[in-house]
Amino acid sequence: MTYSVAVSGASGYAGGEILRLLAGHPEFEVRTVTAHQNAGQSLISQQPHLRSYAGLTLEPTTPEVLSGHDVVFLALPHGASAAVAAQLDADALIIDCGADHRLESAADWAAFYGGDHAEPWTYGVPELPLAVGTQRGALASTRRIAAPGCNASTVALSLAPGIRAGVIEERDLVSVLAVGPSGAGRSLKADLLASEILGSASPYAVGGVHRHIPEILQSLRAAGAAEPAISFTPVLVPMARGILATSTARIVPGTDAAAVRAAWEAAYAGEPFVQLLPDGEMPRTADVLGANTALLGLAVDEAVGRVVVIAAVDNLVKGTAGAAIQSANIALGLRETLGLPVNGVAP
Amino acid sequence: MTYSVAVSGASGYAGGEILRLLAGHPEFEVRTVTAHQNAGQSLISQQPHLRSYAGLTLEPTTPEVLSGHDVVFLALPHGASAAVAAQLDADALIIDCGADHRLESAADWAAFYGGDHAEPWTYGVPELPLAVGTQRGALASTRRIAAPGCNASTVALSLAPGIRAGVIEERDLVSVLAVGPSGAGRSLKADLLASEILGSASPYAVGGVHRHIPEILQSLRAAGAAEPAISFTPVLVPMARGILATSTARIVPGTDAAAVRAAWEAAYAGEPFVQLLPDGEMPRTADVLGANTALLGLAVDEAVGRVVVIAAVDNLVKGTAGAAIQSANIALGLRETLGLPVNGVAP
Amino acid sequence: MTYSVAVSGASGYAGGEILRLLAGHPEFEVRTVTAHQNAGQSLISQQPHLRSYAGLTLEPTTPEVLSGHDVVFLALPHGASAAVAAQLDADALIIDCGADHRLESAADWAAFYGGDHAEPWTYGVPELPLAVGTQRGALASTRRIAAPGCNASTVALSLAPGIRAGVIEERDLVSVLAVGPSGAGRSLKADLLASEILGSASPYAVGGVHRHIPEILQSLRAAGAAEPAISFTPVLVPMARGILATSTARIVPGTDAAAVRAAWEAAYAGEPFVQLLPDGEMPRTADVLGANTALLGLAVDEAVGRVVVIAAVDNLVKGTAGAAIQSANIALGLRETLGLPVNGVAP
Amino acid sequence: MTYSVAVSGASGYAGGEILRLLAGHPEFEVRTVTAHQNAGQSLISQQPHLRSYAGLTLEPTTPEVLSGHDVVFLALPHGASAAVAAQLDADALIIDCGADHRLESAADWAAFYGGDHAEPWTYGVPELPLAVGTQRGALASTRRIAAPGCNASTVALSLAPGIRAGVIEERDLVSVLAVGPSGAGRSLKADLLASEILGSASPYAVGGVHRHIPEILQSLRAAGAAEPAISFTPVLVPMARGILATSTARIVPGTDAAAVRAAWEAAYAGEPFVQLLPDGEMPRTADVLGANTALLGLAVDEAVGRVVVIAAVDNLVKGTAGAAIQSANIALGLRETLGLPVNGVAP
Repeated sequence: MTYSVAVSGASGYAGGEILRLLAGHPEFEVRTVTAHQNAGQSLISQQPHLRSYAGLTLEPTTPEVLSGHDVVFLALPHGASAAVAAQLDADALIIDCGADHRLESAADWAAFYGGDHAEPWTYGVPELPLAVGTQRGALASTRRIAAPGCNASTVALSLAPGIRAGVIEERDLVSVLAVGPSGAGRSLKADLLASEILGSASPYAVGGVHRHIPEILQSLRAAGAAEPAISFTPVLVPMARGILATSTARIVPGTDAAAVRAAWEAAYAGEPFVQLLPDGEMPRTADVLGANTALLGLAVDEAVGRVVVIAAVDNLVKGTAGAAIQSANIALGLRETLGLPVNGVAP
Repeated sequence: MTYSVAVSGASGYAGGEILRLLAGHPEFEVRTVTAHQNAGQSLISQQPHLRSYAGLTLEPTTPEVLSGHDVVFLALPHGASAAVAAQLDADALIIDCGADHRLESAADWAAFYGGDHAEPWTYGVPELPLAVGTQRGALASTRRIAAPGCNASTVALSLAPGIRAGVIEERDLVSVLAVGPSGAGRSLKADLLASEILGSASPYAVGGVHRHIPEILQSLRAAGAAEPAISFTPVLVPMARGILATSTARIVPGTDAAAVRAAWEAAYAGEPFVQLLPDGEMPRTADVLGANTALLGLAVDEAVGRVVVIAAVDNLVKGTAGAAIQSANIALGLRETLGLPVNGVAP
Repeated sequence: MTYSVAVSGASGYAGGEILRLLAGHPEFEVRTVTAHQNAGQSLISQQPHLRSYAGLTLEPTTPEVLSGHDVVFLALPHGASAAVAAQLDADALIIDCGADHRLESAADWAAFYGGDHAEPWTYGVPELPLAVGTQRGALASTRRIAAPGCNASTVALSLAPGIRAGVIEERDLVSVLAVGPSGAGRSLKADLLASEILGSASPYAVGGVHRHIPEILQSLRAAGAAEPAISFTPVLVPMARGILATSTARIVPGTDAAAVRAAWEAAYAGEPFVQLLPDGEMPRTADVLGANTALLGLAVDEAVGRVVVIAAVDNLVKGTAGAAIQSANIALGLRETLGLPVNGVAP
Repeated sequence: MTYSVAVSGASGYAGGEILRLLAGHPEFEVRTVTAHQNAGQSLISQQPHLRSYAGLTLEPTTPEVLSGHDVVFLALPHGASAAVAAQLDADALIIDCGADHRLESAADWAAFYGGDHAEPWTYGVPELPLAVGTQRGALASTRRIAAPGCNASTVALSLAPGIRAGVIEERDLVSVLAVGPSGAGRSLKADLLASEILGSASPYAVGGVHRHIPEILQSLRAAGAAEPAISFTPVLVPMARGILATSTARIVPGTDAAAVRAAWEAAYAGEPFVQLLPDGEMPRTADVLGANTALLGLAVDEAVGRVVVIAAVDNLVKGTAGAAIQSANIALGLRETLGLPVNGVAP
């Protein structure tokens, strides 16, 4: 059967990427696209790369407009999704690409976002290693999915295998990410201007204040950590898309390098979209551009007793829109890979 | 007085940057420029941005050509400097921008470079905090200077203040760097092609194998560490120049945030070229492009008990050519800041 | 039915792009990939973004290896294709992405390439307006296709409608192109290094010497020009892919602006992959990244009596690999759009 | 003597660049910096690359604050300068970097800008070839200077020599420019966001509507053209700074290639900041980054009877701030090159 789909926030970067991927999805039919400021305009006037949607017009983002679809993707600023979602049909499949429904802890929400804490939904990272099994299981029987934060899922996929296998210590994690500005959305901020970003690398949210930190820790606890702690620093670099996350952890004393690598191999064996590269190879973000693929490279630094895991992800695909569609495929019982490219666009 | 200067390796990136800076130096007069492959060509045919040197021709890099100058800058591949330097006048000031004379430990040289270990020269990072004083002292009375590795000096300047002050632990250091490809020189390698670098972030030398690691540890020992250990990962990003180094260290328990910041403030108070930004501000590489300035930002992440220090440096200036000239100024008893811009070229 | 496919030059940029697109083509099955220097290696060791081809190994590029396939794509340096092609089965469909078989005139070949002139094959730009009809007709009954030069087809598509309709003069054409370095292939040349390209715009082949010029003129003659002349200048800019071609022509006196626009509208009405934007809109290369789409914008400058046509194309897709596959679809009687994305990857 | 200087618009890109250059000027002392929105803030909080100005605070942009200085640079949005300037001391040297005082024709102003036409000031492009002499002459005796539009002066310098010498036709000029986004200032517009610019080339103001067109034509008339006409198209490319202007003109029949080149050689012989490259060489924007240098390359395309002139300029230096300071040097009788770097920052 074909599922009718609505996409809200369709004039933004995440909404646009959902639409780009859905154009190649054989079971989803986009019927409705909505926006806030740009309602009334044609979709391709705002997203001129989406030529296949030439006929669509942006409607206002209201529960009335979004109702009546089998699947609704919400790509709204955080704080906006919960109110809209509350008025949609209980049996519609709703995937929120914002932060509203990601955090289980009201205290975390208060500390990092503020405002009302909405109920947590099923977290949309299918391959995420849990203490037992993966997150895929929970997704199979849900109608409410919280797509992940792009940095958060990238780091969680990088470190959870070692946590689950007990080969890395949980209190001394460090992640530094090179990220493209599209992760910040189409926001009119001076530090996102091309003149500021071109030729420059600039950190932000340094010192433990980034909103993706509690989300990472939540995932690591789900993988078996008792009280994980991570130093997390994102650095904006001059590429439109992409996350290159360098994560390191102290290896549990007595664990040899082969056992460390085996933890990641076991976690992702057979996964189509999360792939561990052979020993000695490291991923580049160009290799996953436009693809729903997370590529991981792993090296053991015996001199310092640490493992270094490097993950390359397209923040808009595997980090957001691809994760959303992959999770939706699972929730609907479809083949998980439908509509999701595995090959990157390179060079 | 005016000092006569020769620059070898003048058709490369480091050699070109030495020349660019020397064009604004009131006491140095460039008499000779040499190259290997391009000997016989005009300098500006190889370095078309150096318009002020229109009259100079590249000569071959031989001891005969380089002899007879007051100051000689060597910007040669590692392994090539030592042989040339051995044949130059003992009282000439020689600054080697290659690695040959940086490492004091023959074992480190063997492990990370291989081949013969040349004698160590005075390390050319004037502001580097030592257990007592700074590296500036040693530079005042030397005729042989080893300009630093760009990544190595950036990380050493980032962490040495905390080591010296005893506020950070020395065994659990982590540095991840976003770096531009010019640090690799004008080498014809496929992974340095523009098509590979544009739009992509790619790590290299992951897992404790980068050649700048022993150099960093040597500097940290000089600052007072007994047996430091660092996890070091560089990531190539699409900007021609620049290093944005994110370094973290565990804070010694019981040290409060103010004491941590005070260690860096004390180390660099009054320094013209190494500046700690106010609390809450972080540096960008664009702010130091073309300048001999290292900008540092510092944040304490109390939740994880770590300090994060972020340093922005132009790899070709403060990382190499500027450090070389600043060190030469000191060795000759000139004003240390001569010929060295402090303002970056931004945006 | 499914066609068996071989791709030679599979470790290069054009070959890689053919493979990326074929991964989404329902009727083509890639059986063989070949390379020269990298024969014996796994394909994904050379093209790590092509995850779906994990099992394939690069074989040597020989007629024996390439024989026995229904379709053979040649992505070889010019001069190499003709010799290989001559030994392949007469009824195999062969698409050459090199220049060998593009030019009808031996004199042009001698003047711009040199060496032996191979026989011209059917030119692979289906939408190209001819004096009567389009190039699509000739492609329907051929077994030998010459995929176009990326710059050449972009400019030809930009200007041919006006030539055919008789609304522009043919002797005073000017095209200036902003192009990404991937068009030059994976060549180890100093001026293609990232350090040289990042932050810089640089022209090349200025003054009428670029090899795509005779190819453009050939297309314009096919559209009806008697003796066309074009000033053609490409400028390398810091983006991995993309061509933004600005072409201008003098409007035939007495032709009003509506008649000018009508010429282009008529030429591309109903075309899925060549689209004229509405009056007042101009294309960006980001909008066609990874897509087989050429977007055209058109403005009439009445003060100077000229039309300006701006075309955005992905040099590796619509400029090369996509054109090759689209042409192959036509030659085999398949639906022309099979396997070819129309939506770009943006931002 | 030392001249006291005020810079208004000091938190913008042009204002910042004036300050960066003035830091190296031996005769100018910056006493006052002003801004509109950011008044009250420290200068380096807005321009963190200008470390040498650590003590300065932004004051409001009012005639009172700007009065009493020997030299006042205005870097304000067009329309704002004229009102401020009218209230400043008659004998102060005022250089306006905005458009208000550039155009001599009220009709041109009305057509391209609208609003009140201010009186034209002396145009600040010293090397501009006039029918007799250069613009330098007029600058020597003025107290009111209109710094040029960056694109306008780049194109005028490219074409005026040929006009003056009578070797090119004036009615069929075409210029296409690859430009960096800093030319648009620090404006919060969606199409100037890094995510939109990175990896993309995008034209704007196509079809004869760009505001620099009348300014170009005014300069060409000053060089001797009776009724010049130019097709002018700028294309935004992903580099923060730089203009690479490709201009072509039809060669007057019967003029040989040597005579064409001789026109440009004669125009710029001995000029320190406008240099014609030798035959066969072409400029890159990287070669002039941060420098007050315009590099020109010239090729004659005999097949089409056109000359192609390519100019590389840093829009913020030779295009704006450097031109302003160079003109001020002349007006004050100082050495013209004071404070102005000729070497670019490359790679």
